[in-house]
Amino acid sequence: MSSTDKAVRRAKFEAVWKVVKQELVDHIKEQGMPDDVVDWFERNLEYNTPGGKLNRGMSVVDTAEILKGRTLTDDEYFKAAVLGWGVELLQAFFLVSDDMMDSSITRRGQPCYYRVPRVGSIAINDSFMLEAAIYFLLKKHFRSESYYVDLIELFMETTLQTEIGQLIDLTTAPEDSVDLNKFSLEKHRLIVTYKTAYYSFYLPVALAYWLCGIPAEYTLKGKTVKPFELAKDVLIPLGEYFQVQDDFLDYSGTPEQIGKIGTDILDNKCSWCVNTALARATPEQRKILDENYGRKDKECEARVKALYAELDIAGIYAEYEENVYKKLTGIISDVPEGGEGTVKREVFTSFLSKIYKRQK
Amino acid sequence: MSSTDKAVRRAKFEAVWKVVKQELVDHIKEQGMPDDVVDWFERNLEYNTPGGKLNRGMSVVDTAEILKGRTLTDDEYFKAAVLGWGVELLQAFFLVSDDMMDSSITRRGQPCYYRVPRVGSIAINDSFMLEAAIYFLLKKHFRSESYYVDLIELFMETTLQTEIGQLIDLTTAPEDSVDLNKFSLEKHRLIVTYKTAYYSFYLPVALAYWLCGIPAEYTLKGKTVKPFELAKDVLIPLGEYFQVQDDFLDYSGTPEQIGKIGTDILDNKCSWCVNTALARATPEQRKILDENYGRKDKECEARVKALYAELDIAGIYAEYEENVYKKLTGIISDVPEGGEGTVKREVFTSFLSKIYKRQK
Repeated sequence: MSSTDKAVRRAKFEAVWKVVKQELVDHIKEQGMPDDVVDWFERNLEYNTPGGKLNRGMSVVDTAEILKGRTLTDDEYFKAAVLGWGVELLQAFFLVSDDMMDSSITRRGQPCYYRVPRVGSIAINDSFMLEAAIYFLLKKHFRSESYYVDLIELFMETTLQTEIGQLIDLTTAPEDSVDLNKFSLEKHRLIVTYKTAYYSFYLPVALAYWLCGIPAEYTLKGKTVKPFELAKDVLIPLGEYFQVQDDFLDYSGTPEQIGKIGTDILDNKCSWCVNTALARATPEQRKILDENYGRKDKECEARVKALYAELDIAGIYAEYEENVYKKLTGIISDVPEGGEGTVKREVFTSFLSKIYKRQK
Repeated sequence: MSSTDKAVRRAKFEAVWKVVKQELVDHIKEQGMPDDVVDWFERNLEYNTPGGKLNRGMSVVDTAEILKGRTLTDDEYFKAAVLGWGVELLQAFFLVSDDMMDSSITRRGQPCYYRVPRVGSIAINDSFMLEAAIYFLLKKHFRSESYYVDLIELFMETTLQTEIGQLIDLTTAPEDSVDLNKFSLEKHRLIVTYKTAYYSFYLPVALAYWLCGIPAEYTLKGKTVKPFELAKDVLIPLGEYFQVQDDFLDYSGTPEQIGKIGTDILDNKCSWCVNTALARATPEQRKILDENYGRKDKECEARVKALYAELDIAGIYAEYEENVYKKLTGIISDVPEGGEGTVKREVFTSFLSKIYKRQK
């Protein structure tokens, strides 16, 4: 896709934000709220929701288009985009609160919301309102659809999964107390699956399924397809792969390449790299990790990086990448393809091709 | 009701907590979460949910019993109690987060949850999980009921209303910047209605309505009854009255009477008392309020209290109390009474009699 196409696509998606944001603001206004409260809510929505890459939200629209096999009608596009903004609101809810829990400084090139003057801990309540906005929009636009309750349950369940993931992460890797005994590749897999993969990859596709009337099960060319299970089987490992890449790029990427300086080793992050190192370290190498990981000290960080090189983390990563790619292309190529109302392989290959061997 | 009856009633309600708490814990366990995460979640549920007076939760059960006009069957009791625990979980979600936003020290005679060692800001995510628990329980116990989606929407809408109320409160009366121009009786009414009345009074009754199959509208003895509108008409002013009482007792009650020392004047609270004083103050009296309200200084507080006496806030309160009592008994006595499936006056009188002229 050309960069102009990308910009047009983004602008179209952002136009729907204008509409749904106004609906939310009007709802508060209609209840007779004072102007400063209405303005505060509007700033909360605007500061936290639309400023990111919007990949998650737009993937609802893209998936719906692939499933329909044609350009969406205006009504279909609008509905898909409302669901997409639901995903972005869910992410905004998590990011506002994660930044407080992590004491982060900046987000998307501006101060984290809680650090805006006069906001502070009010950001907690504001994050709740971002979450509540999702269900207001679902009711407004999907109340009369047969799958309304399924959409609600899908958002709810994904929310709880993400909160569970956040809880495992926060209790496994507190920034201020390093204990590598708490780490393992299995813990890493749990954190990544629950904290990221469900809401970033499974949720947008499952939403598009409901919108496009994909059934829970059908038989095609002699094969039984369970679309939601299939989506989990592909998109959860894919989300894990995406996060492993993130972790690996944090260690191996140059600032020019990834647009930031990796700090996972300094910050005691439960990264794929350290978990892979822990799984393969000799007792002597383990001692180096215990003494140097998560220490907020550049020399300690260098010692950990030297050990990663010694253990060939880059080689292990390349091997992992090939294996997961092979596994996923295998599952995808087994999907029988039919007409409207059935799953298309492209739903999954479009994600995979964006992620495979990504360098930033 | 005797104190033994009260204890029995509470114990029965608490027995349902044991069941639903275990269902929640088992749900996390079944997903293969590590033991320390399961234990953390269980402590979050137990520390924050069942330790209060449980008035809100138990009023779902009481209202259902009044509506049925007989003792509930075991199944009816259990379902009503699950909804009651939903209300208590919603309150727990708000209290955990309110305590962080208000930097409170203790709650229900123990340290606020976020002040428990190792919890800190993780309490933000833990509060989210208390909210998510509501919808897990609704799905588990009400998925097959025709009113399942109505229960979800009722909880959702009440949640947003309470969050709006919290936002008005936080932006109107920040503890660190006193500006009485932001206060008014109308603002007070908005805060109280949204932050307290909907979830504490309307929500439990509306939940009991759905459980008991009370219709949205019916005609009885020549009168058209709209039960949900009627509940709002009675319970929102009643909730406002309850909070006005709280505000008045904070000023007038002795520590022996109310079990604490009132600090609303010191803490710049948007109380009914200060708003009533503002509405009636001469320019000179207004100056005293501007200079002494919310000042964290005992002498300033005494000056405000002297002004409250001068303005006869106690007399105005007594008049308000009589007026609201008359208004509510008037609405209630107009309700026509019929058999099962219709609203009973006692639903409302039982609340009113508990609150009228309460001294603590």
